[in-house]
Amino acid sequence: MAHINENYSKLQGGYLFPEIGRRVREFQKSHPEADIIRMGIGDVTQPLCPAVIKAFHEAVDEMSKAGTFKGYGPEQGYEFLREAIAKNDYHSRGADISADEIFVSDGSKCDTANILEIFGSNNIIAVQDPVYPVYVDSCVMGGRTGEYTGNGYFKGLVYMPCTAENNFIPEIPREKIDIVYLCLPNNPTGATAGKEKLKEWVDFAVKNRVIILYDAAYEAYIMEPDIPHSIYEIEGARDVAIEFRSFSKTAGFTGTRCAFTVIPKSLVAYTSGGSAMPLHPLWFRRHTTKFNGVSYPVQKAAAAVYTEEGKKEVKAIINYYMNNARILRENLSAMGFRVFGGVNAPYVWVNSGRGIRSWDMFDKLLGEANVVATPGSGFGPSGEGYIRFSAFARNEDVIRAMERIKNLKW
Amino acid sequence: MAHINENYSKLQGGYLFPEIGRRVREFQKSHPEADIIRMGIGDVTQPLCPAVIKAFHEAVDEMSKAGTFKGYGPEQGYEFLREAIAKNDYHSRGADISADEIFVSDGSKCDTANILEIFGSNNIIAVQDPVYPVYVDSCVMGGRTGEYTGNGYFKGLVYMPCTAENNFIPEIPREKIDIVYLCLPNNPTGATAGKEKLKEWVDFAVKNRVIILYDAAYEAYIMEPDIPHSIYEIEGARDVAIEFRSFSKTAGFTGTRCAFTVIPKSLVAYTSGGSAMPLHPLWFRRHTTKFNGVSYPVQKAAAAVYTEEGKKEVKAIINYYMNNARILRENLSAMGFRVFGGVNAPYVWVNSGRGIRSWDMFDKLLGEANVVATPGSGFGPSGEGYIRFSAFARNEDVIRAMERIKNLKW
Repeated sequence: MAHINENYSKLQGGYLFPEIGRRVREFQKSHPEADIIRMGIGDVTQPLCPAVIKAFHEAVDEMSKAGTFKGYGPEQGYEFLREAIAKNDYHSRGADISADEIFVSDGSKCDTANILEIFGSNNIIAVQDPVYPVYVDSCVMGGRTGEYTGNGYFKGLVYMPCTAENNFIPEIPREKIDIVYLCLPNNPTGATAGKEKLKEWVDFAVKNRVIILYDAAYEAYIMEPDIPHSIYEIEGARDVAIEFRSFSKTAGFTGTRCAFTVIPKSLVAYTSGGSAMPLHPLWFRRHTTKFNGVSYPVQKAAAAVYTEEGKKEVKAIINYYMNNARILRENLSAMGFRVFGGVNAPYVWVNSGRGIRSWDMFDKLLGEANVVATPGSGFGPSGEGYIRFSAFARNEDVIRAMERIKNLKW
Repeated sequence: MAHINENYSKLQGGYLFPEIGRRVREFQKSHPEADIIRMGIGDVTQPLCPAVIKAFHEAVDEMSKAGTFKGYGPEQGYEFLREAIAKNDYHSRGADISADEIFVSDGSKCDTANILEIFGSNNIIAVQDPVYPVYVDSCVMGGRTGEYTGNGYFKGLVYMPCTAENNFIPEIPREKIDIVYLCLPNNPTGATAGKEKLKEWVDFAVKNRVIILYDAAYEAYIMEPDIPHSIYEIEGARDVAIEFRSFSKTAGFTGTRCAFTVIPKSLVAYTSGGSAMPLHPLWFRRHTTKFNGVSYPVQKAAAAVYTEEGKKEVKAIINYYMNNARILRENLSAMGFRVFGGVNAPYVWVNSGRGIRSWDMFDKLLGEANVVATPGSGFGPSGEGYIRFSAFARNEDVIRAMERIKNLKW
């Protein structure tokens, strides 16, 4: 008799974004005339830039001719893409990462979840609270937590509250931990950490043989010059950190699908007997056995992000979104909300300052202003009372949304 | 202190195809003048057909304009593709599968490995021997086996020998099993099962509440009219089987990446308390939480396979490969080899009839004929003495390879 993985029954409700989608569809059904402005799911709205489109077409043409057709490629990605990443994302910032430490994949969502497979099930995992829900849900599905406690937490995980009091940057926990997810710039709070704070984390990880899973999917939105874009800008990080990056937000690839994960060859974890084992061969084995590489035309399209034209065009799109972030911050502040983020991240993290709960804010914004934002409590209990506005919207929509919200009575 | 998943240390050697790649590269290095003919890895060689290329370009153009740009799509795939699959692959053959039972993914390799996540770790898993190595390796990595026994087997798995004596179709094992991988048409043996044999398996699964993981990646190569293309052509299969399909071999998508998995809504497995639980919501949750959908242009390209032009063009390519299979069968038989497969599958499974071991055949073919084939023992101990020839080659290369092999002394 085949048995299910009963850990799935511990999961709470649907995954956040499908639940938002459900409520929006229901509202649209009962208000077919409503002109809904979507600033909920963190999805880009601007088309792929011309340099990317050109490379994409050229690669599709290559697939049409026997002489240039590509079948299976290297599972870890073509060298042309991995070399471009190493040079532009790492060497240019003084981070010592080589092309063969980079694994190209179809998404950071997959990678941040699947990475747990190379770790034993007895590791204690720490997560920011609030944070992108995939880390916690993957831990639950993989049997790496205990039961749901009823108040938004799962037993067995260590939650690190990120609140206005600590500028949404977690303190190093007092409990013993083995693996920690750090998402910086943070989704949903938009918080970023400076070099000193990151150095504290790296030093702690070195001292305690902790692995940092560093999700830098939003690094392209860092505007302030002193904020590190990569954990590998911090001395010692090569020995303790795995970094996740994505073209999704950097270059509008949410529907095109390309990302990468960096596992330095010097990174080790331990056997139960205490022997140090490099993690690179483990992920290499996992990646080559259970994954078959990213679509060749998509990899060519991603590589175009690093051309001179690509860099300029992508930067213009990022500036467009960050201008939206500025409009959000200024307007919502003026309305009396407590406003965070949006300076080095495309997310603006907003508290009503009036004690209103997240889903109540969501329902009011949807029902009365026809604006979709993301309830902060969906990212973790410490997100209660907050709502996340995404700057991934058309500029005119952001302005219209602000006009509508100005008129609400709270 | 972070601990590794020590199950990885049970794995034997590299994954088969990287090992072949290594030997070929070494040979090429020491014989730079050698004109190597590759019939090793089961990778297609013909370019994408014109209907697919046209749809691919059109979708890339959509990504270039704000009005038609696509960000995140449904994780389980766009309805246009799932509807086309349901209609053309299932309804047309009398199989009752609906679009919302289909999950589009980036590869069957990923799906056949990841599917194990929704099952408890206490299930006993049966695999054909020899078979595509991903099933066994995924079981090992996931801690679903015991130690390696030293003779090609892992403890805890049930191996079902597929030999010339049983026409390479496994008998139902006498041991208790909970989950069984069936790959038909088979990789590597090229064997297929008729309706009666499949009905035996389905009846057994119904009676014993066993789940069949049916890998039909090669169904497009079935030429004989009586062989089922889908397990769902068999009565009762909706209640016991998950089916995996791919555009990789059907339409040359090995470098383009698109596949799908079917989980009927009537399919159940059991809790430890014995309650029946549908598997569709579990995979839906897994797929939406840990995967972010296939690239939109790739899905549009895949959908073009089901247009009238697409069907004709894809069929012509399949016929081209199957003509190669015929040439392989006829020539290798004439040389005195024992030859199987290649009638309803693109693989020809060859025994020397002279007691030569698989890797020795591989080395001799590579060294003396500069032809790469795949050692049968790499697929499981019962593959020892066999070598797999892939029909995925240029016709002129197949003919040249046969000329060269004819001249070898064994």
